[in-house]
Amino acid sequence: VPRARGAASKPVIAVIGAGAVGCYYGGRLAQHGFPVHFLFRSGYSNAVSRGLVVKSVRGDFKIPPSRLLAHRSTRTMPKADLVVVTLKTTANDQYKSLIQPLLKSTSIIVTLQNGLGNEEHLAKLFGKDRVVGGLAFTCIYRLNNGTIQHLDYGQIHLGEFSGKQRERTARIAAMFSSSNIDCKVVDDLRYARWEKLVWNIPFNGLGAVLDKTTDKLIATEVGSGLVNRLMLEVMRVAKSLGIHFPANMADKKIAGTRSMGAYQTSMQIDRRAGRPLESRALLYEPLKIARLKKVAVPCLEMLYAMSVLP
Amino acid sequence: VPRARGAASKPVIAVIGAGAVGCYYGGRLAQHGFPVHFLFRSGYSNAVSRGLVVKSVRGDFKIPPSRLLAHRSTRTMPKADLVVVTLKTTANDQYKSLIQPLLKSTSIIVTLQNGLGNEEHLAKLFGKDRVVGGLAFTCIYRLNNGTIQHLDYGQIHLGEFSGKQRERTARIAAMFSSSNIDCKVVDDLRYARWEKLVWNIPFNGLGAVLDKTTDKLIATEVGSGLVNRLMLEVMRVAKSLGIHFPANMADKKIAGTRSMGAYQTSMQIDRRAGRPLESRALLYEPLKIARLKKVAVPCLEMLYAMSVLP
Repeated sequence: VPRARGAASKPVIAVIGAGAVGCYYGGRLAQHGFPVHFLFRSGYSNAVSRGLVVKSVRGDFKIPPSRLLAHRSTRTMPKADLVVVTLKTTANDQYKSLIQPLLKSTSIIVTLQNGLGNEEHLAKLFGKDRVVGGLAFTCIYRLNNGTIQHLDYGQIHLGEFSGKQRERTARIAAMFSSSNIDCKVVDDLRYARWEKLVWNIPFNGLGAVLDKTTDKLIATEVGSGLVNRLMLEVMRVAKSLGIHFPANMADKKIAGTRSMGAYQTSMQIDRRAGRPLESRALLYEPLKIARLKKVAVPCLEMLYAMSVLP
Repeated sequence: VPRARGAASKPVIAVIGAGAVGCYYGGRLAQHGFPVHFLFRSGYSNAVSRGLVVKSVRGDFKIPPSRLLAHRSTRTMPKADLVVVTLKTTANDQYKSLIQPLLKSTSIIVTLQNGLGNEEHLAKLFGKDRVVGGLAFTCIYRLNNGTIQHLDYGQIHLGEFSGKQRERTARIAAMFSSSNIDCKVVDDLRYARWEKLVWNIPFNGLGAVLDKTTDKLIATEVGSGLVNRLMLEVMRVAKSLGIHFPANMADKKIAGTRSMGAYQTSMQIDRRAGRPLESRALLYEPLKIARLKKVAVPCLEMLYAMSVLP
C-alpha cells in the first residue's frame, strides 16, 4: 500500500465501504492531504487501475492509483484514528469483523449511513463514547467504471451519539470543512436523522418498489400527494419523540426535489442492480418506533411491506 | 363474413372487445352453435388466419376461420339480440360509438368487464332496462399468436342492473350454461361486484404497480398481511353500502389464490405491455365510494395513487 504525502502528523482515516459516498468524502479528505485508507469490495480492481475519479458539482478531482490507499481487507489496514462507516446498512451484520481490527483505544467511529439504528448498533458493539453520527445530504452515485458522479448537495451533519457536546466533533467537522466538504455540527443528531428520513422514506422507498425516478413520483398532484402523506407520517413519528419540524417542511422538501430532475435514489439503483434493499434501516426501524409510540402510519406500513416482497 | 351453421333461430350475439375474456366466452357460445360476432382490434389478423384457438381447463376447442364471425368494425356487424361487452374499461369512452350501431329496441347488453361503474355508464347511455351486469371469475390470458389460455375457474355471475328480477336473465344464463360455461344468476349484482373487487384490488393493483405475480405477493407473512389489509378495506367499503361479507372471506380468498401459482393478473400484463391500466374502474371508482361514505382506506388510497404515476 502506498503512503500518502505529508500525512505523517495527520489522523489516520479508514473508510469502511468505499461506495459512492465513501469514495466521495474519503476522496475529498485524501485530496486535501489526509491519509485515507479505503476498504473496497466490488470497486477494488477499478480503484487500483484508475484510482479515484470524481465528477462533482464542487469540482472534479482524481486520486491517482499511486496515491490511493486501496484495500480489499481490513487485515492490510492500519489502526485508525477515525473510522468512517459508509457501508450499505444491509451489510451491518459485518460491523464487528470489519471495524474491530481498526480500533485502538482512542479511535472514533463516524457513521454516514442511511436510516435509523446504525449508531445504536455501533454503540452496542464498540461503546457509545466512540460513536459520532453523521448524515450525508447528497445526490451521488457510482458508474460501472468506478467514476463517482456527485450531482448535487453534499452537506454533512455531525452529532455526538451520546448527546454530550464534545470538542472532537468540531475537530472532525473542521477536517471535513478544510477538505471542501460543507459540514456542520448539530446539537440534536436525531433531528437531522429524522429530517433526512422525511425525504428518504418516500423517495427511496417508492422509488425502489415502483422503480421510478424522483421526478415521476412528484410529476402529478396524486403523486406529490402520496409523497406528502408519507412525509407527514414520518414527521408525526418524529413528533412522538419530541422532534418538531416546521409544518411546511414536506412541501418545501418536495419543491426542493424538483430541481434534482430524474434522480435515481440509491435504493432504486439497488433494486435495478438486484442488490438487497436498505429496507430495514430506512423503513423498518422508523416503523418499529411508530408502532411503539402508537402513531398510525398506514402508508409507511404498506411501503415497508412492499419493499420486502420476494 | 361467413354464416354460422344452424344459427337461424338463435339469438344474434355481438362480443365487443375480443380480448381473452371475450374470445373465451364468445368462443364457447360459438362452439355450441350460437351466431357470435366478434369485434377484434389487435387480434384481428390472427383471428382470420388461425381462427379462435382456446386451451382451457374445461376442454380445448377451436373455431376455424371458416366459421368465425370476425369483424374489425361495428359497421360490418348485424344488429344484436345480445351485446356482450368485454372491452378493457380503459376503452369505455368508446361505448357509444361501438355499441349504438348494434342496438335494436330489444337488444340486451351484458357487461363482463372489471371494476365498478360500467353498468352505470351503459345505463346512462342506453337505458338501464337494457343492462345486465356480469362478472367473470377466471384466470385467462391471450398469447401473442392469439391463442387463449384459460388456466382456472371461469364462472360467470349475472344480475340485473336495475335489481328487478327478470326471466331474461335466466335465459341468458341458460344459454351460457348450455355452452359449457358455469353461470349463475345472482339476486344482488353489487354483492358479486364487490366480492370480485375484494380479490381484484390487491392482486391486480399490487401486481401491476409492483410488477409481481400473485404468488410473490402472498409468499411471505408481510405480503399476505398487506393483501389482507387491502381486502379488509374493500370489505369495509362494501359494508358501508349494506353488503356484508363473511369475516373470514379475505383469508379464504388468499388461500384460494395459492393454487393459482405464479399468476399474472390482467393489470400486470397490461403494465408489462405498456398498455393503460384499468385503474379507474378497479381502484378509483371504489375509492370514490369510500370517500363518499367516509370509510378510511389508506392502503387503497396509496395503491390508487401508485397506479396512476407517470
